[in-house]
Amino acid sequence: MLLNCDLGESFGAWQMGLDSHAMQVIDLANIACGFHAGDPDVMAQTLTLAKKHNVQIGAHPSYPDKQGFGRRSMKLSHDELVNCLHYQIAALDGMAQVHGLSISYVKPHGALYNDMMADNGILETVMQAVSSYAKPLKLMLLATNEQTAHLAMAEKYNLPLLFEAFADRLYTNEGRLTPRTEPNAVHNKPALMAQVEQLLTQGTVTTGSGSTLALRADTLCVHGDNEASIALVKEIKQLIDKEMLK
Amino acid sequence: MLLNCDLGESFGAWQMGLDSHAMQVIDLANIACGFHAGDPDVMAQTLTLAKKHNVQIGAHPSYPDKQGFGRRSMKLSHDELVNCLHYQIAALDGMAQVHGLSISYVKPHGALYNDMMADNGILETVMQAVSSYAKPLKLMLLATNEQTAHLAMAEKYNLPLLFEAFADRLYTNEGRLTPRTEPNAVHNKPALMAQVEQLLTQGTVTTGSGSTLALRADTLCVHGDNEASIALVKEIKQLIDKEMLK
Amino acid sequence: MLLNCDLGESFGAWQMGLDSHAMQVIDLANIACGFHAGDPDVMAQTLTLAKKHNVQIGAHPSYPDKQGFGRRSMKLSHDELVNCLHYQIAALDGMAQVHGLSISYVKPHGALYNDMMADNGILETVMQAVSSYAKPLKLMLLATNEQTAHLAMAEKYNLPLLFEAFADRLYTNEGRLTPRTEPNAVHNKPALMAQVEQLLTQGTVTTGSGSTLALRADTLCVHGDNEASIALVKEIKQLIDKEMLK
Amino acid sequence: MLLNCDLGESFGAWQMGLDSHAMQVIDLANIACGFHAGDPDVMAQTLTLAKKHNVQIGAHPSYPDKQGFGRRSMKLSHDELVNCLHYQIAALDGMAQVHGLSISYVKPHGALYNDMMADNGILETVMQAVSSYAKPLKLMLLATNEQTAHLAMAEKYNLPLLFEAFADRLYTNEGRLTPRTEPNAVHNKPALMAQVEQLLTQGTVTTGSGSTLALRADTLCVHGDNEASIALVKEIKQLIDKEMLK
Repeated sequence: MLLNCDLGESFGAWQMGLDSHAMQVIDLANIACGFHAGDPDVMAQTLTLAKKHNVQIGAHPSYPDKQGFGRRSMKLSHDELVNCLHYQIAALDGMAQVHGLSISYVKPHGALYNDMMADNGILETVMQAVSSYAKPLKLMLLATNEQTAHLAMAEKYNLPLLFEAFADRLYTNEGRLTPRTEPNAVHNKPALMAQVEQLLTQGTVTTGSGSTLALRADTLCVHGDNEASIALVKEIKQLIDKEMLK
Repeated sequence: MLLNCDLGESFGAWQMGLDSHAMQVIDLANIACGFHAGDPDVMAQTLTLAKKHNVQIGAHPSYPDKQGFGRRSMKLSHDELVNCLHYQIAALDGMAQVHGLSISYVKPHGALYNDMMADNGILETVMQAVSSYAKPLKLMLLATNEQTAHLAMAEKYNLPLLFEAFADRLYTNEGRLTPRTEPNAVHNKPALMAQVEQLLTQGTVTTGSGSTLALRADTLCVHGDNEASIALVKEIKQLIDKEMLK
Repeated sequence: MLLNCDLGESFGAWQMGLDSHAMQVIDLANIACGFHAGDPDVMAQTLTLAKKHNVQIGAHPSYPDKQGFGRRSMKLSHDELVNCLHYQIAALDGMAQVHGLSISYVKPHGALYNDMMADNGILETVMQAVSSYAKPLKLMLLATNEQTAHLAMAEKYNLPLLFEAFADRLYTNEGRLTPRTEPNAVHNKPALMAQVEQLLTQGTVTTGSGSTLALRADTLCVHGDNEASIALVKEIKQLIDKEMLK
Repeated sequence: MLLNCDLGESFGAWQMGLDSHAMQVIDLANIACGFHAGDPDVMAQTLTLAKKHNVQIGAHPSYPDKQGFGRRSMKLSHDELVNCLHYQIAALDGMAQVHGLSISYVKPHGALYNDMMADNGILETVMQAVSSYAKPLKLMLLATNEQTAHLAMAEKYNLPLLFEAFADRLYTNEGRLTPRTEPNAVHNKPALMAQVEQLLTQGTVTTGSGSTLALRADTLCVHGDNEASIALVKEIKQLIDKEMLK
């Protein structure tokens, strides 16, 4: 169970996230490519950090909307979305190579991530874009109760998938995240640690209605916004290491 | 003597240049990378055209200034300029690979081009950026009376140079272009064709003061803005082909 | 019946539209505010033209998406849309005052225009934004079979409306424009002139199914893209002038 | 002696500065206009804060360079700079009026501020832009030993000036700020408080070489970046209030 984290989301003079701390405790760094966050300088610094801490890297592309931090849906045509993804993946890929690194996966950001999980047409466009890139890349997406269907879609594109689960979010019966607007949508720490342990030991989560849902999770999404979240990531990592030793 | 032309300088809904015509008559396409012009869609279309017409491609990066079309000098630090170039080169390089193409050179655009020709510090930064990219690339720059010094600088970076000359511009004794603000700065057609012929047959230009200046020119810069300029490129190409047969 | 036209849609080095010709034949210039097109220089030039030809001016604000020319829907929150509109209206308003002009109305652009005509929640947000601006402005929107409802909505905000009709587009029974993807969506010239005449003399249009639909149209939307469209605007203007004399 | 502070320099999801605290202790808020920082939402929030705390507001326009935070010089033509300033001033002015506020001055930001203080041509362009705005505005600039010349220049444009001094920076004999690259360029707290007291009581500063330089300072520039700087502003304010009572 690998830990993935969105990084490189500073922009110009604006700092975001404790990247230098987060990079020490994660396995996969989802690096912003300049469309919702990041810029050439931030990307270079983030790649330097990833290299130093030997962290695997992936592209974290977005709709082109810096003011909205990529959190606002935009209606792009199929071709626009494919090109928009190729551009961002390419920019990070080439810069990574300058630093002696190689990207291995793509995780769409924000509204694009939500839109692809809600709309199979958009998901197919994303799959086509990632699989048509000139080097083999995996696509990271949400582990839901539609994993089998998503794997079948991806097979058409010969595209490996990385399923991610969330430690801190209450799941619905469909394996979706309960909207933050609802009470209990975000776990407190004991519930969070319990969810991680259940994922690790049984490959399931307990949903908001009390059902047990099987989820194949290759990676857990964690956050590096502040010191509290970094501390939490360390505890999650210890739990994973403990379980791995069993 | 190869013909190079700036292409892919449309943006969004705005068209610029007769790219589909120009691509039929040139050898080297300098493709905008999204900072002064171009966007992921324009870049994809331009790469498709380049592939169709079997034209060699290079990155045409710029200062980040779309409103000013990269024609306004910006004071970037060494690292900012290096990263800014890596990002743009990478974006085009990766997209080119998606189209089964490979970029082979970099020609800086507009104010960045002028600044690097006027300031050896900026030129060295550009050389370092291009030579540190993960694949071998050439740098295209202006053929002047400083070619020997420029070659020596480039050798430090193990960077091959492509020197370009201008067909339509009157040269100074230093091998610089006479500013457009001066009379006679831009040749009429007979003078232009004579300058090309002289470059081809004797490797020299006649400067504004009547001196003869030796210039090593690997490529000629031509324009594809409108039908008149495309027609002119065709005539220049015929002249080159005729001389090559001699 | 006033003629309105989208103008000032050049950007930086990219030209769009024959503004200097169009400005001579229209009554209302919808001026881009820098979010989908236009920039401070283009806006200054457009205002100079409007003053020279004594044309009334309005703000033509958009979603913030220059690459997409404001034609791609974006999900903005209520507050984001209000602020986005205030900013654009203010920028044009203040620049207009520098030129001794005053804006009198707002016509949303592209996807925002379509979204507000399709979603009353967005329309109310637009109405609130325009009516809360510090000077009284009208809102231009599409004349449909919901005019009465729209007037009632606007009354809540004490907001005068300007209804616009299209000369060149086939109407549905709901007073909406037949999508361009359908055959006959765009009138040929005789049908177009007939539609204008019918609007002028009877205040109705004939819809795609042959029904007659009453539309209150304060203004006709015309285009200044090229010489053909400018010539057409002149003919429409002559027709209007002829009818006005009757 | 009024305290002025740069505010509204957050952008999208990125926070900068403790604006809600700073606004409680300053007299003049220099509000970013969206070109180096700020966006329509940040501007609306900043205006709301200014209104709540009854703080005078001014426009804080910049070169168009968000990634560089307006800190990189850009070569704009006279007209480009005038229009760029009008646009930004207008955007803030109109939004301020929506909030029942009115801007009263303009303080250029970052590289534009430095460039206008270093180049009288740019300063005249700025003066022309500010004085040609449709409402009377003051221009805030650095108090130097050229104040008399600057007042004479401004008189041509009938433009009132607001001279600002810095509390925390060592002055040169020319009344310029010692570059941050030099030792002692930034005062420690006792030196800072002494400089403020000397400005208040004697209207002079002691320069790096020990000379006494007379400066007319209408306002002091202070910072609201963090809790330490806010605490410092409070102490400066107490010192000013104490001197005022004498």
